[in-house]
Amino acid sequence: MSKKLFQIGAIASVMLTAGWVWADSAAGDEPIQPIAPYKLTQPAKAELGKKLWFDPRLSRSGFISCNSCHNLSMGGSDNLKTSIGHNWQKGPINSPTVLNSSLNLAQFWDGRAKNLQEQAGGPIANPGEMASTHTLAVDVLQSIPQYRQEFARVYGSDKIDINRITDAIAVFEETLVTPNSRFDKWLKGDKKVLTAQELAGYQLFKNSGCVACHNGPAVGGASFQKMGLVTPYKTDNPAIGRAAVTGKDADRFNFKVPTLRNVELTYPYFHDGAAATLSEAVDTMGKLQLGKQFTRSENANIVAFLKTLTGDQPKIDMPILPPSADNTPRPHPFD
Amino acid sequence: MSKKLFQIGAIASVMLTAGWVWADSAAGDEPIQPIAPYKLTQPAKAELGKKLWFDPRLSRSGFISCNSCHNLSMGGSDNLKTSIGHNWQKGPINSPTVLNSSLNLAQFWDGRAKNLQEQAGGPIANPGEMASTHTLAVDVLQSIPQYRQEFARVYGSDKIDINRITDAIAVFEETLVTPNSRFDKWLKGDKKVLTAQELAGYQLFKNSGCVACHNGPAVGGASFQKMGLVTPYKTDNPAIGRAAVTGKDADRFNFKVPTLRNVELTYPYFHDGAAATLSEAVDTMGKLQLGKQFTRSENANIVAFLKTLTGDQPKIDMPILPPSADNTPRPHPFD
Repeated sequence: MSKKLFQIGAIASVMLTAGWVWADSAAGDEPIQPIAPYKLTQPAKAELGKKLWFDPRLSRSGFISCNSCHNLSMGGSDNLKTSIGHNWQKGPINSPTVLNSSLNLAQFWDGRAKNLQEQAGGPIANPGEMASTHTLAVDVLQSIPQYRQEFARVYGSDKIDINRITDAIAVFEETLVTPNSRFDKWLKGDKKVLTAQELAGYQLFKNSGCVACHNGPAVGGASFQKMGLVTPYKTDNPAIGRAAVTGKDADRFNFKVPTLRNVELTYPYFHDGAAATLSEAVDTMGKLQLGKQFTRSENANIVAFLKTLTGDQPKIDMPILPPSADNTPRPHPFD
Repeated sequence: MSKKLFQIGAIASVMLTAGWVWADSAAGDEPIQPIAPYKLTQPAKAELGKKLWFDPRLSRSGFISCNSCHNLSMGGSDNLKTSIGHNWQKGPINSPTVLNSSLNLAQFWDGRAKNLQEQAGGPIANPGEMASTHTLAVDVLQSIPQYRQEFARVYGSDKIDINRITDAIAVFEETLVTPNSRFDKWLKGDKKVLTAQELAGYQLFKNSGCVACHNGPAVGGASFQKMGLVTPYKTDNPAIGRAAVTGKDADRFNFKVPTLRNVELTYPYFHDGAAATLSEAVDTMGKLQLGKQFTRSENANIVAFLKTLTGDQPKIDMPILPPSADNTPRPHPFD
């Protein structure tokens, strides 16, 4: 009990530090900041990364690409409770959106990858996901003349290794930001863009303490927090969160706070995907994290606000992948 | 034996009827015609069809879309011997390319669907593929307000049924043609666009009789022919081809002649996907269909010609799919 109180205390002090004004605040004082559009500085590398992002030959089966579980048609997620991996294995955790993931303090729910490049190597070699190996992925790409040319153009030599592969993927992922949400327009001064209900939802979102964790440009992604702060979270998902990385018991059930950008598109919610709808997620978060039971209309207001966080989705021209060569290692979907 | 001779005779008469000149022919006399660019007449319907094409909610799992097995980044195919279906089931047959499929005389390898619309309903409800039902697919889409609006815009009312779903998908698929291949440029008079090797390959392709089946704008797709005409084809794939549709023993192993457009991208080849490379496919076709053993350099020349059939790939802006509503039936990937 004392621990819980301490954690609630910690949130309160964060709030004070940030100096939020709880009503009629000027946009500059808001705990959420607009997302800046991405400035493309390495177009050739991003284009190569896009090809790799969509290339299922990075998986053992030749069927699963990065986009399979972080689908850019569906908010950068797969809209499944937990993902489907090689041989239809049931994934252990909900697939987080790739959109705005460059704004996260670390990658994966438990933050075990310090950045996007480190993250990108994980699923390729994870036997439950793409089930390839870094060696095989390199061999596949190295055998394809067009890829060798493209790596040479981007990196100055046609050597392909896992560092270059994941670097290119990460640079592509950095382009996947979603500016110009209606809420961002409001933040920037267009005060008519939100409805009264959406604004009421935002006020409640601030006043109830949601912003303690869901703040900054990504409206989350900036800290690890305990799932089940006030009331323990009940789940049969075995993930223990940050403790798996730090080994510290205090980090049990600490998960990276998910971004709420585009949250309308990234259902179902929580690390176990247990909340099917935004309404359910808001209700559960209120009870478990804040000790609050939102009324039906409060819930609806917050949901209305959350839907204003849907930004411009990245415009993706599907890449045409270079064909395999005669000596390219073939996929093994069934053996 | 007499039957085989008859079939070869039939091919010869087709050749004569077409009136081909075997050397120095003017482009107008060629057995292959250029592909015309698609003229978009129903943009709203094609756009709706594109959304449905990419929407994995048409599958029971929420994971498999049309594009999973007819990937527009990979020549409209999945580059697997046979496809992966719901619950990682091994598909019975190689996934044919969707590119230029509107030019086929019928759909599926055995032609059991008379057109693209009829085809589109198949995989959705096939327990080994997308494993949904037409009723469930309709219920899912009907529950999503943005889809209802879009159907209303396109069809004049927001009623969603399987006919409208497959009609929109078919109209999208009709847009997927690939004009402007180097070979088409040559056909249209740019005589410098092909190398001497590619031209030699084309002459051999004509003179050897490949064009008997692979002709017309799609370089195939216009007839059913026996796989293993001169020498029986050995495979452990149980598909019996056209006979499964007609019930006639004479149609055993008659398959729709696949288009050779973009064949560089649509490996592996044949209905069982047994030929991993173009070189292998050409060698097998020569032996089994024509009773010919191409030399190594003849084979290389034909392969060089075939690679000139890669046309402009459709430019696809990935659609942003409308999110599920609270009452949308959820996917069932694991049960």
